[in-house]
Amino acid sequence: MLTSSNKNNDLFLGIDGGGSKCKAIVMNKDNEILGTGISGPGNPLHGFEQATDSITKSAMLALEDAGLAHIKLSELVAGVGLAGVNIPMLFNKMAAWQHPFKNMYLATDLLIACLGAHNGGDGAVIISGTGSCGFSCINEKHNIVGAHGFPHGDKGSGAWFGLQGVKQVLLSLDCLVKPTLMSDILLHKLNCNNDTDLVEAVASQKATFFGQQAHIVFDAAKLGDKVALEILEEGAEYMSNMARTLIVNKPSRISMLGGLTPILKPWLSADVKDKLEEPLNPPEVGAVIFAKQQEAKQTEHKSV
Amino acid sequence: MLTSSNKNNDLFLGIDGGGSKCKAIVMNKDNEILGTGISGPGNPLHGFEQATDSITKSAMLALEDAGLAHIKLSELVAGVGLAGVNIPMLFNKMAAWQHPFKNMYLATDLLIACLGAHNGGDGAVIISGTGSCGFSCINEKHNIVGAHGFPHGDKGSGAWFGLQGVKQVLLSLDCLVKPTLMSDILLHKLNCNNDTDLVEAVASQKATFFGQQAHIVFDAAKLGDKVALEILEEGAEYMSNMARTLIVNKPSRISMLGGLTPILKPWLSADVKDKLEEPLNPPEVGAVIFAKQQEAKQTEHKSV
Repeated sequence: MLTSSNKNNDLFLGIDGGGSKCKAIVMNKDNEILGTGISGPGNPLHGFEQATDSITKSAMLALEDAGLAHIKLSELVAGVGLAGVNIPMLFNKMAAWQHPFKNMYLATDLLIACLGAHNGGDGAVIISGTGSCGFSCINEKHNIVGAHGFPHGDKGSGAWFGLQGVKQVLLSLDCLVKPTLMSDILLHKLNCNNDTDLVEAVASQKATFFGQQAHIVFDAAKLGDKVALEILEEGAEYMSNMARTLIVNKPSRISMLGGLTPILKPWLSADVKDKLEEPLNPPEVGAVIFAKQQEAKQTEHKSV
Repeated sequence: MLTSSNKNNDLFLGIDGGGSKCKAIVMNKDNEILGTGISGPGNPLHGFEQATDSITKSAMLALEDAGLAHIKLSELVAGVGLAGVNIPMLFNKMAAWQHPFKNMYLATDLLIACLGAHNGGDGAVIISGTGSCGFSCINEKHNIVGAHGFPHGDKGSGAWFGLQGVKQVLLSLDCLVKPTLMSDILLHKLNCNNDTDLVEAVASQKATFFGQQAHIVFDAAKLGDKVALEILEEGAEYMSNMARTLIVNKPSRISMLGGLTPILKPWLSADVKDKLEEPLNPPEVGAVIFAKQQEAKQTEHKSV
């Protein structure tokens, strides 16, 4: 008979920590989802303490959701996938965290997204949410495209679309380009009457804010706004090019992930669109898959 | 005979507070420059305390430079021109500052730059430094073009050129565009070997940092790099368009100001270049001119 302690050894936590939120999932060894939790930003680039707090909080919420509030975090094996830890300095900082879990296996948000999408198998993903990037894992070789951050990278992402829209509206308010539908939509949404109001509203704002403005481009494009359509096409072209650089290495599967998938997918080039397959699991499940693979490797290593 | 106290009434302080530094100048009533001082950032958008500290510090340095360290700040009439105070919220916050001066007259950095360039007369200026903007003052009517901030505005500025360069290099490291001379120049300058190093170096950096990278575009353009030349032309075209929207209102003079003037001026359109005249005084002198104009108005007002 299993003791209570042994039973708890079979609980896995999956974490997907991004720039705007941190998702947690609790699964058992049979890959059943027992509970989920969501908390604040989990990217350590925007603050180590905020990220670690978000991870802990989302984990506790997931346990609670599973009716397992009595289980301690120290009884969970955690797979933690985070944005930002593709930067070695941040990976090392997070890896050195005095985490509350039984074991913690740390990976990039890209790897867990890819493992999730292809159920632990090889494959590639292109992602467009607040940020954008591409990633493939083929024969344990990882390839990252993009993931450069805002405002210098992340073309084709929500933050990029929002920034392009805001830029265009500001130029139109100075009469340096013709105003289009985007101007009215943005000014109305942010409750601004003129460029001074708008400058105040966007001053010092970060990627998340600009990501929230992305839909002004999509809404205007839907209504036939030519400038918005050009922005949409430019962003989609970048995502198609990103997919092609991954497809060159012949991944067995490729999926598109992230909040902008429903909007952008129809705009991708046909050659890319034809190859895209639905993701099999979300990134937080990929984090659990990662943790299990790492545990299995260690057992293997010990038994050799 | 003037008492010591009356004598001090004749001392004016001019402040030009920008995103990277704050310049102070002490002048007497005969417009003689007695001393100058430079301290840290003076734009209240990036911190109210930092801005007020920089103003106070640069003022004390200017007094020291003038051999007037015994004079108290409370004996100076200050003209204070600041970046950021075109945003009403920041103007009000700075105007409510419990400043240490006898009187403080607050203006935008644009107005003092324009007053300085045209020795207190009407005119227009186009400015490209870390940020960019255009401004005119004609019959007391002010017109601002740009001054929107980074990363959503300030096209044709140092921060914009640096950002375009960094973007291009990052795309080339992902093989999404061909690498050009800018890639080698930037990687070498920032001591980076690959895109991970570069992403780490530019993560969360602000306008000032990107402004410091602008010369990678100019250096590469000088060596014939076509992509760099295109960026240079696009930025210069924006500055020319900005000048044209000001020239429409027939300012008596128009000047180009800011650190990028020597680099960008040759690239402006001929119709704009032909109209540019040398600025007569720097912005900090414009701040003193502003303070004197305001004092004169008050006297006028009292005597009516």
